[in-house]
Amino acid sequence: MSLLTVGSVAFDAIETPFGKTDKIIGGAATYITLTSTYFTDKSNIIAVVGGDFPMAKIEFLQQKGVNTAGLQIKENEKSFFWSGKYHNDMNSRDTLVTELNVLGDFDPIVPEEYQDCKYLMLGNLAPTVQSKLIQRLKKRPELIVMDTMNFWMDTMWDELLHTISLVDVLSINDEEARQLTGEYSLVRAARKIRTMGPKTVIIKKGEHGALLFGEHEMFYAPALPLEDVFDPTGAGDTFAGGFISYLAKTDDPTFENMKKAIIYGSAMASFCVEKFGTERLENLSPEEINLRVSMFLKLVSVGGNMEL
Amino acid sequence: MSLLTVGSVAFDAIETPFGKTDKIIGGAATYITLTSTYFTDKSNIIAVVGGDFPMAKIEFLQQKGVNTAGLQIKENEKSFFWSGKYHNDMNSRDTLVTELNVLGDFDPIVPEEYQDCKYLMLGNLAPTVQSKLIQRLKKRPELIVMDTMNFWMDTMWDELLHTISLVDVLSINDEEARQLTGEYSLVRAARKIRTMGPKTVIIKKGEHGALLFGEHEMFYAPALPLEDVFDPTGAGDTFAGGFISYLAKTDDPTFENMKKAIIYGSAMASFCVEKFGTERLENLSPEEINLRVSMFLKLVSVGGNMEL
Repeated sequence: MSLLTVGSVAFDAIETPFGKTDKIIGGAATYITLTSTYFTDKSNIIAVVGGDFPMAKIEFLQQKGVNTAGLQIKENEKSFFWSGKYHNDMNSRDTLVTELNVLGDFDPIVPEEYQDCKYLMLGNLAPTVQSKLIQRLKKRPELIVMDTMNFWMDTMWDELLHTISLVDVLSINDEEARQLTGEYSLVRAARKIRTMGPKTVIIKKGEHGALLFGEHEMFYAPALPLEDVFDPTGAGDTFAGGFISYLAKTDDPTFENMKKAIIYGSAMASFCVEKFGTERLENLSPEEINLRVSMFLKLVSVGGNMEL
Repeated sequence: MSLLTVGSVAFDAIETPFGKTDKIIGGAATYITLTSTYFTDKSNIIAVVGGDFPMAKIEFLQQKGVNTAGLQIKENEKSFFWSGKYHNDMNSRDTLVTELNVLGDFDPIVPEEYQDCKYLMLGNLAPTVQSKLIQRLKKRPELIVMDTMNFWMDTMWDELLHTISLVDVLSINDEEARQLTGEYSLVRAARKIRTMGPKTVIIKKGEHGALLFGEHEMFYAPALPLEDVFDPTGAGDTFAGGFISYLAKTDDPTFENMKKAIIYGSAMASFCVEKFGTERLENLSPEEINLRVSMFLKLVSVGGNMEL
C-alpha cells in the first residue's frame, strides 16, 4: 500500500571515532524513504532542498522507486545542514552546526497524486509542519506514525502535544519519553503517552533495543549486539522507516504485525550504523535483509518446555 | 544436582525513593540460596556471619531446604554490613557504609558433605576467597559460575584475573565488562573475557536485560519492563541464583539450556526488585514463577512467516 513520508532531506557532516565525512546526504526523510524501497514500490516523499542539493542523489531515490513529486527544490536557497561529532561511546554526540536554511519556512505541499496514501510517516520535523501535512490530506491515512525528538519539547511544547494528539503511533527514545511524561518507568511513560492520543507507543532504546506498547500488550525487540557501530546517524529514522514500510507492504497495522514491523525496523537500523550516512542502505538485497531478520529472531529464541 | 554457593550473608540498610529500611538481611549468598530453593532441594551454603545475626533467619533458610553446615557463626564478631542509597532513577546508588567485620578474614571451610557438589556458584566476594574455595574442593565441580564487581578490579586486579581463569561462566555487568577488557562493544568485551578462561560470559544490563555469549553463539534475555522498581538490591545475585539453580535442577549446562537458565534468572530478579530486600523471594509459588517466565517469553515472541 502507498506510503507517504515527510521529513528533512539534508546535508550532514559527521565525525565519529572511526573517521570524518565532508557534507554527505542525510535527513530523516532520506533514511526513511531509502529504507522503504526494500518494502514497497509506492513510496512518496514530501521534503524541501536548496539548489545546492545534488540532482544525482534525487535521481538515485527515483531509480530506487521513490516518487519525488513532492520534493521541492528552492534553487536560490541552501539545503538544511547539520554537523555533529560522536563521543567515544557512540551513545552521545555534540551538535556542531545546525543551519535550517530551506527548512526555516518549509511549507509541505501535497501533490494531488499523493492524496490516496494509506500510510503516513511523519519524520522528525517541526510539529507544526507535521500537523499541517495531516490537515492537507483530504482523507485521513489509515495509519499515521510520528517520530520526534527532545528539541521540539524544548521549543514547541504546545504544538508538539497537538500533533501527538493526531497520530496513531508515536516513536520516541527513552529519555525523550521520560521528558515528555515526567515518568521514569517506561511502562508508565507509555501509558501516559497513550492518553495523549497515540494508541501505540514505540520507545527506542538505542543499543538496548525498542519497546512496543499497545493497550494491554507489550513487546520487546532487542537490538543486535554489534562489534562496531560505525556511525549511528539516521539509525532512528531507518528504524521508523523499516517499521512503517513493513506495515505498508503487508497492509496490516495490527499489534501482532507491528511486532514483526519493529523487528524489521531494528534490522534495517542495524545495517544503517555499519557505514557512514546512508551508504549501507543504498544497495541491500532481500536475502541480506532476511538473513539479518533471522539473526534477530535467533537472538531471543529458546526451544522446548519452560515449566518448572 | 547439588549446588554449592559461597558468598556474603549480611545486613543491609537500604534507602530508595520508596522508603527506607533498618538493618535487614542481605548478602549475595542469601539471595542466591533463597532463589535456589525454588529449583533444587540440594542447596548448600558457605558463608560467615557474626553473633549478631538472627538465628531465625538461618532457620528460615534451613526450613526452605538450604544446608547451612558451611555457614560459620563467629559469636564474638559482627556480621558484614552494607548501607546504600539509591538515586531517583534507581540505576545508580551511593554506598553510605561498608563494614567488612567477619568478612575481613573469612576462611571458607568446606564441610565434607559438600565435597560432591556438581554446580558451584561463586557469589560476589573477594576473588582470593573464591579461588581458595575452588582449591579446597577435592573434585572440580562440573560447572563453576562466578559473579564479581568493579570493586575487585580496583583493589585485587591480579587475584581477580587468576580466579576468572579458573571458572566456566563469568557473570558481570556491562560497565564492569568494559572496565575489565577496555572494549566498549559488548561483543568484543565478551570475546576478550573468553580468552581469560570462562567459556561462557553473561553480561548483565540491568533494566535492559542480559546477554549470554558462547563460542559462536549469542543470546539476549530482555528484562521485563516494570511499572515500579522498588529496591534493586540483590537483583544481580538473584539473577545469578536463578541461572545456576535452573542448570543444577535440569543438570544440563549446555548453551541451549543456559538460554532457558538466563530467562529464569531474569524472572527471579524481576520478583526481587518488587519489594525491599529478600521479602518478595521468601514465599513464591511455582505457579507464580511459571507465569512470570511465560511473560518473559511472550515479551519477545512473534508468530508466522517473517520473510520479505
